[in-house]
Parts: sequence; structure tokens; C-alpha cells
Amino acid sequence: MEEKKLDQPIRVAVIGGSGYTGAELMRLLLGHPRVQVTLVTGQSKAGQPVASVLPSLAGVYPGLIEGYDADETARRADVAFCALPHGASAGIVSELRDRGLVVLDLSADFRLSDPAIYKEWYGEHLAPARFGTAAYALVELHREALRTADLIAVPGCYPTAANLALAPLLKAGLVEPQGIIVDAKSGVSGAGRSPLPTTHLPEAAEGFRAYKAAAHRHTSEMEQELSRVAGETLRVTFVPHLLPMTRGILATCYALTKGDVTAEACTDAARALYEGSPSVVVRDAGTHPDTLWVRGSNRAHVGYVVDKRAGRVVAMCAIDNLVKGASGQAVQAFNVRFGFDEGEGLRAPAMWP
Amino acid sequence: MEEKKLDQPIRVAVIGGSGYTGAELMRLLLGHPRVQVTLVTGQSKAGQPVASVLPSLAGVYPGLIEGYDADETARRADVAFCALPHGASAGIVSELRDRGLVVLDLSADFRLSDPAIYKEWYGEHLAPARFGTAAYALVELHREALRTADLIAVPGCYPTAANLALAPLLKAGLVEPQGIIVDAKSGVSGAGRSPLPTTHLPEAAEGFRAYKAAAHRHTSEMEQELSRVAGETLRVTFVPHLLPMTRGILATCYALTKGDVTAEACTDAARALYEGSPSVVVRDAGTHPDTLWVRGSNRAHVGYVVDKRAGRVVAMCAIDNLVKGASGQAVQAFNVRFGFDEGEGLRAPAMWP
Amino acid sequence: MEEKKLDQPIRVAVIGGSGYTGAELMRLLLGHPRVQVTLVTGQSKAGQPVASVLPSLAGVYPGLIEGYDADETARRADVAFCALPHGASAGIVSELRDRGLVVLDLSADFRLSDPAIYKEWYGEHLAPARFGTAAYALVELHREALRTADLIAVPGCYPTAANLALAPLLKAGLVEPQGIIVDAKSGVSGAGRSPLPTTHLPEAAEGFRAYKAAAHRHTSEMEQELSRVAGETLRVTFVPHLLPMTRGILATCYALTKGDVTAEACTDAARALYEGSPSVVVRDAGTHPDTLWVRGSNRAHVGYVVDKRAGRVVAMCAIDNLVKGASGQAVQAFNVRFGFDEGEGLRAPAMWP
Amino acid sequence: MEEKKLDQPIRVAVIGGSGYTGAELMRLLLGHPRVQVTLVTGQSKAGQPVASVLPSLAGVYPGLIEGYDADETARRADVAFCALPHGASAGIVSELRDRGLVVLDLSADFRLSDPAIYKEWYGEHLAPARFGTAAYALVELHREALRTADLIAVPGCYPTAANLALAPLLKAGLVEPQGIIVDAKSGVSGAGRSPLPTTHLPEAAEGFRAYKAAAHRHTSEMEQELSRVAGETLRVTFVPHLLPMTRGILATCYALTKGDVTAEACTDAARALYEGSPSVVVRDAGTHPDTLWVRGSNRAHVGYVVDKRAGRVVAMCAIDNLVKGASGQAVQAFNVRFGFDEGEGLRAPAMWP
Repeated sequence: MEEKKLDQPIRVAVIGGSGYTGAELMRLLLGHPRVQVTLVTGQSKAGQPVASVLPSLAGVYPGLIEGYDADETARRADVAFCALPHGASAGIVSELRDRGLVVLDLSADFRLSDPAIYKEWYGEHLAPARFGTAAYALVELHREALRTADLIAVPGCYPTAANLALAPLLKAGLVEPQGIIVDAKSGVSGAGRSPLPTTHLPEAAEGFRAYKAAAHRHTSEMEQELSRVAGETLRVTFVPHLLPMTRGILATCYALTKGDVTAEACTDAARALYEGSPSVVVRDAGTHPDTLWVRGSNRAHVGYVVDKRAGRVVAMCAIDNLVKGASGQAVQAFNVRFGFDEGEGLRAPAMWP
Repeated sequence: MEEKKLDQPIRVAVIGGSGYTGAELMRLLLGHPRVQVTLVTGQSKAGQPVASVLPSLAGVYPGLIEGYDADETARRADVAFCALPHGASAGIVSELRDRGLVVLDLSADFRLSDPAIYKEWYGEHLAPARFGTAAYALVELHREALRTADLIAVPGCYPTAANLALAPLLKAGLVEPQGIIVDAKSGVSGAGRSPLPTTHLPEAAEGFRAYKAAAHRHTSEMEQELSRVAGETLRVTFVPHLLPMTRGILATCYALTKGDVTAEACTDAARALYEGSPSVVVRDAGTHPDTLWVRGSNRAHVGYVVDKRAGRVVAMCAIDNLVKGASGQAVQAFNVRFGFDEGEGLRAPAMWP
Repeated sequence: MEEKKLDQPIRVAVIGGSGYTGAELMRLLLGHPRVQVTLVTGQSKAGQPVASVLPSLAGVYPGLIEGYDADETARRADVAFCALPHGASAGIVSELRDRGLVVLDLSADFRLSDPAIYKEWYGEHLAPARFGTAAYALVELHREALRTADLIAVPGCYPTAANLALAPLLKAGLVEPQGIIVDAKSGVSGAGRSPLPTTHLPEAAEGFRAYKAAAHRHTSEMEQELSRVAGETLRVTFVPHLLPMTRGILATCYALTKGDVTAEACTDAARALYEGSPSVVVRDAGTHPDTLWVRGSNRAHVGYVVDKRAGRVVAMCAIDNLVKGASGQAVQAFNVRFGFDEGEGLRAPAMWP
Repeated sequence: MEEKKLDQPIRVAVIGGSGYTGAELMRLLLGHPRVQVTLVTGQSKAGQPVASVLPSLAGVYPGLIEGYDADETARRADVAFCALPHGASAGIVSELRDRGLVVLDLSADFRLSDPAIYKEWYGEHLAPARFGTAAYALVELHREALRTADLIAVPGCYPTAANLALAPLLKAGLVEPQGIIVDAKSGVSGAGRSPLPTTHLPEAAEGFRAYKAAAHRHTSEMEQELSRVAGETLRVTFVPHLLPMTRGILATCYALTKGDVTAEACTDAARALYEGSPSVVVRDAGTHPDTLWVRGSNRAHVGYVVDKRAGRVVAMCAIDNLVKGASGQAVQAFNVRFGFDEGEGLRAPAMWP
């Protein structure tokens, strides 16, 4: 990237650069023509060259992983992308905002707007003074708010997929707000870089299971956003599953139709809502979206089928959980915030196969 | 298996021995102490040694794949397991029954009891005279009928998983019969041995998608059996998905509770129904069944979670699609039919990891 | 397995039953008609039901994982299979031998016969008084010694594959003893049940690398056994690799031919050596063995190709690392030791696909 | 890519755009700032939108797959990348050259310089008049010749990996030219987009085997290039294997050292040869390159280990077979040919994980 010559690139820090979303931020930001990555922090790997921790960046990025320091970050960067676990994020986000940085937070700490709901699903908030001050970066639904936001909460991976599939139907009044089910399946990169029994290849590569059925925290983000679109409070039954593969989420969503609704009508509603959005591809009615076609890209593929016998829509959305479900969506929101083309740095097609 | 010395083993023919369910029949039957495999047929591989087509049987089974002939089969076998595609199966089943063999048919040709429903999902039946004469081999629900059946229809893989999870709830009146959703996920071995773009490793190993959403033929078997248990006609929204792995089906089923139902009540209902059944393990309430633990075995793992917020049960069942979902269930029905212990030849634990 | 009624089954303890080789011992021993598993020990899981730690055994084995105690083991078992790490094994093996049990040790502690070589590769031995007293259980090469052995050292997985491929060539004088290269590839189950970065699915499923090139401890077992067969001290260059799959080792071995040697001659030499051996299948000359066909079985598939242009044999062997490479070979040696048919409990074909 | 505004982009045709290397050319060329893709041809898919055949390009490339026509191609493009099978390529390359296009041919048709060797491995050449007129695009070894070449033969995937690992050692005189062994392992995308039994997921995902041992055509490219570097004719024993994953080649190469050679000396030799080469990363001595770190990128990772006991170097190289092993290397050669920075359009880091 040594040749990128820009008049005034935006100086960016990646806080928590050695996990999967941090590494993905690096991959995307190093190729972004308006960005200069000036700082990468990481707790356990501090002092090591980035290229040792991430050999994929050998020959690409010459710097070190550094220990985090708020003042040093403020001195060297205008914008911070925080790729930290929830809880650990709130305090750091808060002190970087205190120092005037625009912060994009990939954790759950600032996604919810109702403190009671946060408490129900996550417990005590660790920076309550800033609670509720963030714009929610499901860009396609919150573009205007993002243009002026200085604290941006990047959505969870599952809610991104489910909400992109369901929002057009609720907005167009094609489905009942009550009784929605989201049966979602995620590649194991969603579980992070720390090895676990459930991600150990011999037990993950040829096994499949649900986890936290009807008890996953991302339920709250689905309910918040879909209730807002529907104009009434709704409940979602959300069951996530762990797929024997690395990247990708498919959300298969079920909703009861209001009257005689066709897959074409659903598709039209989605095309209307996502017109001009570079990161959503609405497939033809009856098409089944496939995570294969979005791997490594910031694009969501949305598709609709109607079960006429049962009066139900099957709304499906495929994303790459690390890109549109995390780091790519963060960059997309960054583009909106700084007035760049929304697809800047995000135009690369999926890596296929 | 050369040492197996039995006074009067039952002579068994495997019709269609070179596909996946045929090979799995061979694996199971060659280890069954009451069986002697006397004949294996296959169309495209006729004349080749079984051990060439299935090197896993080198040193195990010395015979050839033979061309199919009804009279020859009747001369050499008392029982036939037919592992042929639907349509191709009906005629052969019929002529083997004409010759007095007990036939276990793994195709869909004799699973349904209503000819109109067969026609709706499969088209014209090719042996209408025998339509409706078979016992349906979801053993746990039809054990008595199987004891005297001479034509046995082995259930489809998806209905096996979905019906084992849901039947106890409907039978005990814990859930509403209407509004059931089955979101099922299958390893690609379910698609058979013929290479297809959707099973081509580069496009299957890191991709995930639904297919035939709300249009898969197995819907009819779920509706038939669950309606019978519920005592009323019901509709199922069924969406199958293809998993990036070889063996295993997980059915995640959603049903509305009748009143205040707990996961413990669902679990108790399942334990009551499956008491004494060697092929169903009911996991503790709140456990998520995993295909990993049933791979290669004839056991189904069933588990229940309740979403109290939405008044819905999540009923899950994990099976090996080639064993409990096909060939193993066929052997289990065979055991019932011939008065053997139901687990005979099927006791081996799953291969883990 | 509840119905197995034997006059005098041999009482067997599995020491270290919750890891992969321990679980595989359970799978094989619970199906062995001459064995009664009376005790399973495990350190971290002591007190838990086996079926909780290994849900694949739910409905199969009702007992608990117990803490290890030498006297208790001696009271309840005649034979112990030890599936412990090297170092941890030596002391326990020793005290079980002191109490008169026949011990089959799956660790490296008793595989080598030269203490200097042990020290070079493994460090200090922890039970030196018993060093050199074991029979080495590559059954096909040491059958006679095993018949009377009370301490049996089960070979490493890689040496099993490499030595089965190369021994016939050295024995028949078809290749030069010097200059042998073993390029081997193993599924990640060989790394054990503890999650590691290198076995974490996102980093293991689509990555491939060598490890410990020319520095892996199993080199010593290859050199010991092949030197013995060749009648002269030889060196092996051994490079192992980690495959993105669970089970299976393929050893691709390179040796210079002595004169004009054909693949047929190599194949004949192997067939001569392995005649009557139920666990080795010698494929036709020019065939490439595939781990796919041995998964879950105790069979090794061996095959030979000759590179005439370079005067070199390519000798290949495929095994399941957890079966013929560990637990299955232990059971095979047990059969020889107790005078059972060598294939007893090991006849099941590979699980395919 | 709609916003790319360049004064004079080079007009490029992709001939054979619907296979894997064609799709990868599209992915890379659509992101190349000096290129305008004006034409994509494909035989069986002609007339279909590119985004139907490659949904990863939905929203990226609006055109159709067209039938191939030499004159039309010449009218609309200055450069053609041909991603056709060998044999099928020679004639088309020839007629495009006749019309003045610069042609980069990804097939084997123009890689060899000796017609007798071509005939030995591939049979009759179908455009003998142009045989021997191409520059061989292993860029790091042939940079000068490529600057002025109008016909460029892009190397095979295996020879790229093997030759990058071995060339520095032969050039520096660190190893014996005779007795070299290349044991290489490739992801199944190397077998192309057509489904085959060996790429069928159930038989490929948990299986591993060699194929065409000592008989693969790529042997000829290794021998040609390594003989050239060594200054003497040498033979290579080459054994390829099919890995249960999609992308990536690891070549593990064995050569006898000349005297007392260290891994550091090998590493230094490689760093000297590849200094200034943006597409080769020489890892520290003793490091094992991993395909994981190069997936999706045009970088080769090279590393060396020495087996002092046996006097042998283990030289390893990891590449993405579809990028540095095919389409990326083609773009790299294109950059050299047209005087662009060698890394133009190829700087994106690997997709990890």
C-alpha cells in the first residue's frame, strides 16, 4: 500500500487489532483510498510486529501491535475503530470520545437505546453517561443519522442479516409483526479467535447444533430495530446455530403474511427500500441466497419465498459475518459519516470459490 | 465377516448397492449376526467387484455387483432392501413382492397413504395396485404394524428427524397442531453419490443455503404423520438447507405452546413416548442435540427448549441421515419384522470425533 | 451392549477415557464380544457420567468416569489400556504391571528399545526399570512377541503408516535403506481433544502446513523399526503435515530402488509380508490409497507407484490415525495376546462416506 | 466499480470467464485501476448475465457472458487473458495474436520450450507455428523477458510453488540438482468447476490421497525451469495430492545439501533472489509456510528447514493456486508487460481467516 498518495487521508486507529474483526478491519482499511492506518493496538500481542501476528499482512503493513493508551491514540488518530468485547469496550469508547475522536464501536455496548433492555440482556452498563448517544450503523436503515454521528454502534452479525431480510416486509406492511421466527446459522469465525471445544475442528467440522436457543443476546437488537420499523413492539424467537465452516451467516426468517402476499411483492418491497444501496443485492423472487457468493465482501444477498399453503413468508439473507456483519459495515458507516462514496474501499467482489 | 456362523441366517439382497444408502446397508448388514448378504445389485457398476466400487469393503465382502433380475433375486434371497430412487423403485418392489419376498423400500414410493397427496408431490404412481399396502417404518410410531408387514416403506430422512421431535408434543397435547415450522439442515450425503454443482467441494464446503423452501416433497410425510398423531389435519412449513459437511440432519422445529409449557414437560413427554426405544435418546431439558454425537449410529438425539417470551417450543432432533434417516432405520424395521431385538446390528456407538 | 452374554469376558479398564484415543477404545471395546469394560478413568472429568462427557455413548454405557487408583484398577480389571500422554503414562503403566495386569500402553513411553534414543527425543524416562520390556505392537511385524507380552507398546500413528508401507520393500531388498523420505499428512484429531490455535476451525479448515519438519519424535520409531527390517542403521527424513480434516493419515514415502524395480514387484512383496493379516489391504500396483476408505476402520491400505525416470518408489499407506494408528491397533494386539482371532471386534468396514 | 475514471485504461477481454480461473481474473481485473474489462466470453453460458453465472459479481459487473469471436475480441480489446483448457487454448491464442492482441495464456500450451518434451507430456501441439514464442511468466525468474513479450505463458500452479521454493537453492549452489522430490498438496479448486467424484464433498471433505504420482504433466515445467537455473538437466520426482479444502497449494520439496548448509543460508539465498519482488515473502528460517496466510492473495510464502541428520533441505512454498498459481500471476505479468507497478491491483492482503 506504500504508493497510496493522498492529500489528506483520515488517520485511523484500530483498537483490538489481533482478533478476527480487528484483522478484517486491517484488511479493509489498508485498501481504503481515504484512510491511513496509524495505530493498531492489542493487549496480549503488544510489541509484536503485526506481520508476526497476522502473516497475511507481511509485506503489506510494517508496524507493530502496540499497547493501548488513550492519549497516544488521540495524538495519532482522528477516528478509532474499536474491535473489543462488550464490556471491555464501553470505557475505552468513552475516553476516546472524551478526547474528540470519532469512534466506531463494533461491540454491543452502544447498540441498544433502552437501558432496561440492555440490563436485561447484558447486565450493568459500564459507561452509562454515553448510553443512548450512538447512531446504530445498520446503514441502510439509519443513513441520515450516521452522517453527523460521532459515536457509531456497529450492529451485531445476526441482527444485520435478520433485519435486512425482514425490515422491507414490515415497512411495506406485508407481514404480521407478531410471531416472527429467525433461524440463523453462522460460520464459526463468529465465535472469535480463541480456540474452544465448539470450534475445535474435529468437533466442529462434521457437527451441527443450535446454541442459546431463544436466549441469545442479539434477540434484543432484532426486536429493537424491527419494532421501530413495524411501529409496534414485537417479539422475535431467535435460534442461532454454528455451521461447520468459517465465514458466513444465513438468516432464514419466518413471518405470517397479511393477506395474499407473493414472493414478487416481497422482492419489490426490498428493492424499493434498498434502491441505491451498494451493499444489498435483492435476488429475484424465489432465489435462495447463499453465503458462498458474499464471502469476503460487504454485500448482503436477500431473497424471498412464500409458502402459500401456510400463509407465511420465508425471508432469507446471506452475509459474511466478519464483513457486512462487522468490519465491513463499520467501514460503510465510516464512509457515510465522512461523506465518501458509501462503497469506497468495499467494492471488491466476494472471493469465489 | 467370514467367521459368522449362524444356524439359519436370513438371506438378504441389497438392490442398488453402490449408492450411499446402498453402501450403508452393506456396512450394517454385513455386521448383523442374523443376516447373510447373498446378492448386491447395481445398474451402472454391474460386473465389478464390490470391493472395487467400495474399497471400504476390501477384505470384508468378496462378491460382485450384479445386474438386477427379479427371479434370480427371489431364488437367492428371502428379503430385499431396495435403495433405488423413487419412481425406479415401485416396479421392482412390486415384482419382488409378487415373488414372495419381504421388501424394505428406502424410496418414497410407498410412504404416503393418500394417493391424491402422492400425486400432488410426486406425480403418477408406477405401481398403483400396491399403493397403500406398506407399513411406514418410523419404528417408534408404527412398531406394531411392522411386526407383520411384508412391504415396509422406510421414511425420508427429514421427516424422521422432524417427526421424532414433534410427535411427543402433539401426542401429549403440549403444542398447537397449526403453525408448525420445520427448519432442517442436512449434510450433503443426502443428495446422493452423483456429483453436482451444489455438492462440488469448492462450492459446498464454505457455502450455506436453503433449497426448495416450502416446496420439498418431504413436507407430505411430515404432514401425514403429524396429522395422524395430532388427530387433525395440519400443515407444516418446511425449509431444508444443505450443510457444508457429509452426514447428519438437524431439524429445528417451532410450535406454539398450549398454555404454560416447560422444556421439562416436553422432555417428559418424549421420554414417555420413547421408553424402551433403543434408537432414541432424549437429552435433558435445555440441551441442544448435535449431529456430531450420532454420526454413523442409528440413534436420534432429541432435545427441547421453550421460548417463554414468545410462547413457543423449539424441538430439535439430530440424526445421521444415512443411518437413522435411511439404512439404519431400514435394519431397525427389519429387526422388528423378524422378531429380533430391535437394536440387533445397530448397537455400535457413533463414530466420534 | 446389555445383551452380550459371555461365559468369561476379559475385564478391561480404560485409563484416560475422555480423550480421543480413550473414546475410540471405548467404541471398539464396547463392541468386542470377549471384553467387559469394567472401569473408565479420567482426571478432569472424574465423577461425571461417561454419557455426559461422550454423548455418543448415551444409551450404550451407563457408568461414570472415575478417578484413577492403581489398587482399585487391579481389583476390577485384568487388562488395562492406557491412553495417557507420554511421561504421564510410564508411572501408571509401571504400577499396573506391578499389580499383575496386562498393560497396553498407547503412549510413546515404551516404544523404543534404545534408552539413548529415547533420551535424545523424549528426555528422561520416568520408569527406567521397565524400559525395554515391552513388545512393540505393530502387529504385522511383531506378532510372535505379542503372544506372550504383558507390557505392550502401541506404535505411534505416523510410524504405523510409514512402516507398513516401507517394511515390505526393505525386507525384500527392493529399495536402498539410505535416503528414505516420509512426507506424511494427518487429520487434526491426531493433535488430541484440547483446542489449540492450529486446530481452531477458522484457521484449520482452509489452511495446510507442515510442522516439526525433520524434528518430529516419531522419526525415532520409523528408524528403529525400518533399521531392524533392513538389517542396518538407517536415517529417515520425516515431515508431518496437518490436514484440514478430522481422521486419517496418508504417508507418502520415497525410497531409491535397487536396480529395475516395478510397482508390481513392490505390491507382491507387500502381499507376501501381509498374507493372512486382516488389517492390511494391499491395493493393486499403481493404486493411490485414500484415507476416505479406511475412516473408522482398523484397516491400512497400502499402494505402490514407481518413478522409473528417477529410480524411485513412491510407497503410500492410508490409515485412520485413531484406529489402526492407535486404539484399533491396541485392540488388535490384545487379540493376539489373548489368542482371539486377530480381527475380533475390528471387522466393521470403514464408515463411507 | 462504476466510479473508476481513468484516462486511458487498457481494454481487456477475458476468454473463458465462467470457470474458476476466469472468475478469479474477473475479481482481480475489475479492481485493477488501469484496466477496463470490455468483454467476457464463455461457451456453455453464452448469453447469460455474468451476475447470473457468478452472483458474486451482482452489483459489480453488469455485462453478459458472450460467445467467443476472434474479430469481435480484436475490435473491443487490446489484451486477452485466456483461461481455457490446454489444447483448446492454442488455436484461440494464435488467432488473437494474429490480430495483434497481447495474449496472456493460462493454459499449458505455450509454457514449454522444447517441442519434444511438450509432445511427451501433452501430445501434438495445435499451433506449432507459435510454439516457443512465449515468455514464461514466473515473473520473479523472467521479469526482463516479460517486458517486451506479446505472448505470455502463465505457469502451472504446482510449478509456481515448487520452483519458487527451489530456484534460490539451485541458483546459489546450496543443493544438488539431482534427486529432487516435490511432494505437493492442492485444494480442489485446482481441479476446476466441473463436479467430479473426487471433488464431491462427501468423498473429498474427509479424504486425502495422491494422484498421478510421478506422472503429472507439471513435472515438465519444474524440470525445464529448475534445469535452467541449475545449469544442467535434472529430473524431479513429483507427487501431487488433493487436499480437502478449496484454495491453496503447499509444495514440500526435498533436496540434498551440498556440504554443510543451514536453513539461514537457504533463507538468505531466497531473500537475495526475491529482493524487490512484491509477490514473494520469505519467512524466517525454520518457519513452516501455511496456505491459510495467502488465501485470496498473490503472495507466495517461502520457508526453509534443514534436516542435518540426513543432509537434506526441506524447501516449502505456500500459494493460492487460483491467484499466484494462475490468475494473479497473469495480472502480475500483465503489469510488468505494460510498465505498471508489479503489485498494481494485487496488493490486497489474504482473506484471513
